[in-house]
Amino acid sequence: MTSFRVGLLGRGTVGGAFAALLEERAARVEHLTGLHPELAGVLTRSSGDFEEILAGSDLVVELMGGLEPAHEYALRAMSAGRHVVTANKQLLSQHGEELWAAAREHGVQLRFEAAVAGVVPVIRVLQESLAAGDVERLHGIVNGTTNFILSEMERTGVAYAEALAEAQHLGYAEADPTDDVSGRDAAAKMAILARLAFDTPVHLDQVPYEGIERITSDDLEYARELGLGLKLIGTAERLGGGLSVRVHPAFLYPGHPLASVAGPFNAVTVESETITEITMSGPGAGGPQTASAVLGDVISAMIPPASTPAPSRELAIVEDVESAFYLHLEVADEPGVLAQVAQVLGLQGISVKSVVQRGLGDNARLVMVVHPVLESRFFAACGLIGGLDVVRGSPRAIRVIEEEFV
Amino acid sequence: MTSFRVGLLGRGTVGGAFAALLEERAARVEHLTGLHPELAGVLTRSSGDFEEILAGSDLVVELMGGLEPAHEYALRAMSAGRHVVTANKQLLSQHGEELWAAAREHGVQLRFEAAVAGVVPVIRVLQESLAAGDVERLHGIVNGTTNFILSEMERTGVAYAEALAEAQHLGYAEADPTDDVSGRDAAAKMAILARLAFDTPVHLDQVPYEGIERITSDDLEYARELGLGLKLIGTAERLGGGLSVRVHPAFLYPGHPLASVAGPFNAVTVESETITEITMSGPGAGGPQTASAVLGDVISAMIPPASTPAPSRELAIVEDVESAFYLHLEVADEPGVLAQVAQVLGLQGISVKSVVQRGLGDNARLVMVVHPVLESRFFAACGLIGGLDVVRGSPRAIRVIEEEFV
Repeated sequence: MTSFRVGLLGRGTVGGAFAALLEERAARVEHLTGLHPELAGVLTRSSGDFEEILAGSDLVVELMGGLEPAHEYALRAMSAGRHVVTANKQLLSQHGEELWAAAREHGVQLRFEAAVAGVVPVIRVLQESLAAGDVERLHGIVNGTTNFILSEMERTGVAYAEALAEAQHLGYAEADPTDDVSGRDAAAKMAILARLAFDTPVHLDQVPYEGIERITSDDLEYARELGLGLKLIGTAERLGGGLSVRVHPAFLYPGHPLASVAGPFNAVTVESETITEITMSGPGAGGPQTASAVLGDVISAMIPPASTPAPSRELAIVEDVESAFYLHLEVADEPGVLAQVAQVLGLQGISVKSVVQRGLGDNARLVMVVHPVLESRFFAACGLIGGLDVVRGSPRAIRVIEEEFV
Repeated sequence: MTSFRVGLLGRGTVGGAFAALLEERAARVEHLTGLHPELAGVLTRSSGDFEEILAGSDLVVELMGGLEPAHEYALRAMSAGRHVVTANKQLLSQHGEELWAAAREHGVQLRFEAAVAGVVPVIRVLQESLAAGDVERLHGIVNGTTNFILSEMERTGVAYAEALAEAQHLGYAEADPTDDVSGRDAAAKMAILARLAFDTPVHLDQVPYEGIERITSDDLEYARELGLGLKLIGTAERLGGGLSVRVHPAFLYPGHPLASVAGPFNAVTVESETITEITMSGPGAGGPQTASAVLGDVISAMIPPASTPAPSRELAIVEDVESAFYLHLEVADEPGVLAQVAQVLGLQGISVKSVVQRGLGDNARLVMVVHPVLESRFFAACGLIGGLDVVRGSPRAIRVIEEEFV
């Protein structure tokens, strides 16, 4: 068994989650790559030695954050022929060209999916799927903290300070939230996305940004009247022969793909003439989510994506599943009909969530939504209901997907 | 200059668009890969010879559709050591394991991003970003024709037959729409997605499907009352120790990430404990979109994704951009205020889209949305408005993103 040694710099929330995930998924990674991944060493504030970790690693994962020594370590790792995976948006938005040049010079990979939009695979899509693309514009909600705060203000009507306190309480905002609420964090991410989308150098300093500190609940109330929702939006777009990259609060009309992105989520919409538009969304941060993006990068660096591996298992196909249902019946317009139908459902253990009844001359329509139940059991009940004297024609059933999302 | 020769099988809508795109983007592809791509030959129903094209190609793009001879040609190309890129979902959902085994055996790549959800990069994300993932469930709107028909029925109240005719008229449905409206096309795509997400063989025959032919406008009307929207949903999920893959119409509550996907669009939501959920959406078909996905695959097959290439250009950063604005003013509650404000805006060439005015004791609030204007000009007008006697405090301005989406 050949092993693949991963050196880890930093063991905060993301670093700790990554170390755990690497161990948990080691067998799966080996199935995919033929190499067994193992943690070669961890550098924390108080323990570990960079030189030693570097010497013992095939790849270095940088999750320290900040500019130095992350910058120096990334350069030294690449000079030593190691691939580097990082989630450091400040580093890439300020020293990106130097780092990418070092990767090219030393023939190693520098991967950074986790630096922007957490587990939302926007970096990979820009670098690979849209590599030959003619991107015209990119809009992003790339900071989960501010999106949570604005969603809360919109949902509950509270003031900015209160929504910020709630975000801090829930762990969505740091004790010092300046980087997030000022728009600077989003600006760093937009600099990276614009660099990839437009194949031109973009530095954080070239991205003007405006935060959400001045937004009042009043603004949100008027906006609702005007049919608008408020987000902190990063924009990167071609204009004439140039490029504009910027971050500011902006109202969106309801049809916009980013308008429905609520809570601590991130989302990016890429527009081009060829593809029209693609939108990707998901959780913007969180230790396990970010660690998952880092692990995806590590696997890609371990081996060029091969052809689809042979299946590692043969799952049984399940024939009978649970589902909620919408049930539409034409019934006689007389007393006791609902009771008869409800009795059949009750005997099958099927519980009703909502009912709409409507008269229609001699007949009435009875429409209900029932809670999840095994499909076989539901269809058996439908058969019985269809046989009731008071039911005309065949019951019509359509499944309902019930989960609640943020 | 080293060239990379691409053999093309099939020149229908997608094949034609791909041939054009390959030529248009040749320089960009060369920048990314170091190899100059060129079309080595095209096989159509009436012209071209497969053996000759195979002999002269480094990679074969199969866009013929159907099972034979696509199946035979793909196998022969891989036996001959050629990478294969295909958009053929029927082929992969019925002969996938044989083809993937052939790719592994001959050490070539078999790529198929365009087979599912057009330009939405769900295949790449499942194969790469989520390779080590613990996918629990996947929900997809993977057929644009049916999503368009259901959206039309919901939007306009027309019957199924009428919405189908409209889809045919607009080119979103074929003359014989059976494969789409029956759910069979979606079932093939779900078989492929389930294979990748769960690393277990899944054949089209194992995917029960139900179409949208029986849906009535009546169902949609009741659903609206119940707060539900209707989609043709593909589901693949772990259940106990097994797997269920299925396609059927289903109602969604408004918070579901797929609920807002309207028109001929596709979208896929992937759920797992580690990542929570990722949603990707975009146009589901169309020649240029599908061709763009095929080209992304060709580039990936040409060379393992390298480190970020050096920038190929240096775009100027544009300082002054156009934007629509929301403008919030506290004003004296007296006649003529709106006229004064409107005059300033008018003199700057700024046109008002909507206004909300509301009294508040002595003061009133005037909130308006203006059409896009150069930001410098808008802020100049704001300065003038702030100087008006009738305006109290500072004007508050927030940008509005205006585009209309499907």
